Amino acid sequence: MSPASASSPRLRALVLGSGGGGGVPQWNCGCRVCRLAWSGDERVKPRTQSSLAVSVDGANWLLLNASIDMRQQILATPALQPKGDGRHSPIAAVLLTNTDVDHAAGLLSLRERQPFTIWGTQAILDTIGANRIFDVVGRAIVPRHAVKLGEAFEPLPGLTLEVFPVPGKVPLWLEENEVKTDQIGEGTVGVAVEAGGRTLLYAPGCARVTDDLKMRIAAAHALFFDGTLFADDEMIVNGLGDKTGRRMGHMPLSGPGGTLEELAACAPARRILIHINNSNPILIEGSPEEARVKAAGWDIAFDGMEVVP
Amino acid sequence: MSPASASSPRLRALVLGSGGGGGVPQWNCGCRVCRLAWSGDERVKPRTQSSLAVSVDGANWLLLNASIDMRQQILATPALQPKGDGRHSPIAAVLLTNTDVDHAAGLLSLRERQPFTIWGTQAILDTIGANRIFDVVGRAIVPRHAVKLGEAFEPLPGLTLEVFPVPGKVPLWLEENEVKTDQIGEGTVGVAVEAGGRTLLYAPGCARVTDDLKMRIAAAHALFFDGTLFADDEMIVNGLGDKTGRRMGHMPLSGPGGTLEELAACAPARRILIHINNSNPILIEGSPEEARVKAAGWDIAFDGMEVVP
Repeated sequence: MSPASASSPRLRALVLGSGGGGGVPQWNCGCRVCRLAWSGDERVKPRTQSSLAVSVDGANWLLLNASIDMRQQILATPALQPKGDGRHSPIAAVLLTNTDVDHAAGLLSLRERQPFTIWGTQAILDTIGANRIFDVVGRAIVPRHAVKLGEAFEPLPGLTLEVFPVPGKVPLWLEENEVKTDQIGEGTVGVAVEAGGRTLLYAPGCARVTDDLKMRIAAAHALFFDGTLFADDEMIVNGLGDKTGRRMGHMPLSGPGGTLEELAACAPARRILIHINNSNPILIEGSPEEARVKAAGWDIAFDGMEVVP
Repeated sequence: MSPASASSPRLRALVLGSGGGGGVPQWNCGCRVCRLAWSGDERVKPRTQSSLAVSVDGANWLLLNASIDMRQQILATPALQPKGDGRHSPIAAVLLTNTDVDHAAGLLSLRERQPFTIWGTQAILDTIGANRIFDVVGRAIVPRHAVKLGEAFEPLPGLTLEVFPVPGKVPLWLEENEVKTDQIGEGTVGVAVEAGGRTLLYAPGCARVTDDLKMRIAAAHALFFDGTLFADDEMIVNGLGDKTGRRMGHMPLSGPGGTLEELAACAPARRILIHINNSNPILIEGSPEEARVKAAGWDIAFDGMEVVP
C-alpha cells in the first residue's frame, strides 16, 4: 500500500491543472499575465490545463477531465504515478464534463494498454467516439460508460457521482455558422462527487447560473467553479480575440450577472475558481482583481492544490 | 530581432522530444528505465515525445512532428516562445511524418488563432482530416498543404524539404485485423531538410532499410534515425507487451538486420538515435547497450540537444 492509502478514507481532491484552454503561459501569448509568466515573475504561477483528481482511499483515483497536459500533470503528482515494477496506474477512471481539447485530449496520453474506465453523457461519448484517434485508448481494455443526467453512479467504490446540465456551448472544434452559447443538455455538464456524506461540486465551464445549479451549489461542501475570465470583454480589450466570455460559453466573474454577484448568496464557504484563462488578472498575485475575488470569499486554484471538502 | 536571429544563417536543429510513444518515464510504466526515471536517478534523463525543430534564421521555425508534449516542449525552449506583447509564435510551419499520437496530437496544442502552415502527404492529411477535433486548429488560419513524395518544397524561406517513403505501418489507432507492418507509401515518410548546401535526414519510424533509404542516408550530413528499441523482443522479455519491435513498425538497433548492422556502411559521421522507447536500455547512461551504440558511432538524442549539420 502507498503511504497515501494508509490515511483516513476521506474524500480528497487534487488540482492537476487550474488554467483554462492553453494554460499559463499560453504558447503564443504575450498578454500581461503571460509576459510575467514567461519571465518567471513569482507573482504569476505557471498553470497547466483544467483537471481535478479525486479519491477516497488515496490509492485509486478518478480524474474529472483529462487535459492535454495530462502527462506533465502525472509527472508532477506522485499519487498518480505507477507502483511496482510492471505496468500500473492509480488512475482508475476518467469522467468528461465536455469535449473541449483542454478537457478531453488528455485521454490520448492514457494509452499503452492500461485498464481504466471512461464516463460521460452519451452526447459526450458520441462526440469523442466520432474521432477515431481516441481509439488509441483501446475500447476492449478501456470501456466507455454512458451516464444519464441526474442519475447516481459509482465509478470507484465509495465514490458516488451525479452529472447535471450546465448552460454551455459546443466545443470550438464543432462550431459552425450560428453558435448557441447557452445550451442546456448533455454537451456540457457539472458533476457532484459524494463520499462519506461530503459533497464536492465541479463545474469548470458555465455560461449562466440556473436555479437548479444554485440549489446544487448551496448543498455542496466545496465548489470548484468556472473562473475563466474576470471581465466579459477581457479578450477584446486586451487585443487577444474578438469574443466575449459569454460567446465562449463562460460567464465572467465581475459585472452584472457575473459569478461574484450570482453566487454570493448560495456558494459554500469553500469556493474555488478553476479553469482560469491566461488573460485573467486574478492570476497576478497582489492585483486588485485577485483582492476582489478573495474578499468575496473565493480561493484561486493552483496546480497541486489539495482540497478536503 | 531576437538574439537567436542575429546568429549566422545556418541550418540548425533542436531536439524538442527524444522519447518514443509515452516518453520517459511513461505514465503507467515501472520497467527498469522508468523506475530509474521516476526515482530521479541521474543516469536516466527524462524525455518528452518525439519532435524536432529546424531553422535557418533562428527566428522562424519548422517543426518536424508535433508531439502531444508540445506545450511542455515550448515552455522548455526559449527559441519557440512568443516575442512582444500580443499573440505571436516563432513556429511558422509543422510537417508530419506519420499520424501516430506522439507525432501528430501536438497540433491540438497549437490552437488559439495563430497563423502557421501544416505540411504532410495527402494520406497523412486525410487521416488527420477525418478527425474533427483537429479543426480546433482552424483551417482558414492554418492551411494544410499536401506534398508529393520525392518533390521538393519550401515551407520556410531558405529551407528546402523532400519527403520520401519509409517502410512502416498504420497508426495504432487505425489498426484492424491483420496489420501490415512493412508498408511503403504515403503513410510513413522520412524527410530531407536542406539549407545552404547542408542536409539533415529525419526518419523517426522505420521498419526496414531500403536501398533508396541507404542512398539518401549516405548523401546526408546529419541523420536522426528511429532508435525505438534495442532488441526486437524487448517489450516481450520485459513483460511490457506482446509485440516485437518489427510488429510495431520499428526495426531494432541490435541483431541481424538491425540498425547498427544495416547502416554501418552508409550512415554519416553525425548519426543520432531519436524516438527512443522507455524500454530501451541505451537510455541508461553507463549501460553496456549505450556503450555499444556509441562505439558504433551513434549519438543518443536528448531533449534540448542542438545539432548543426
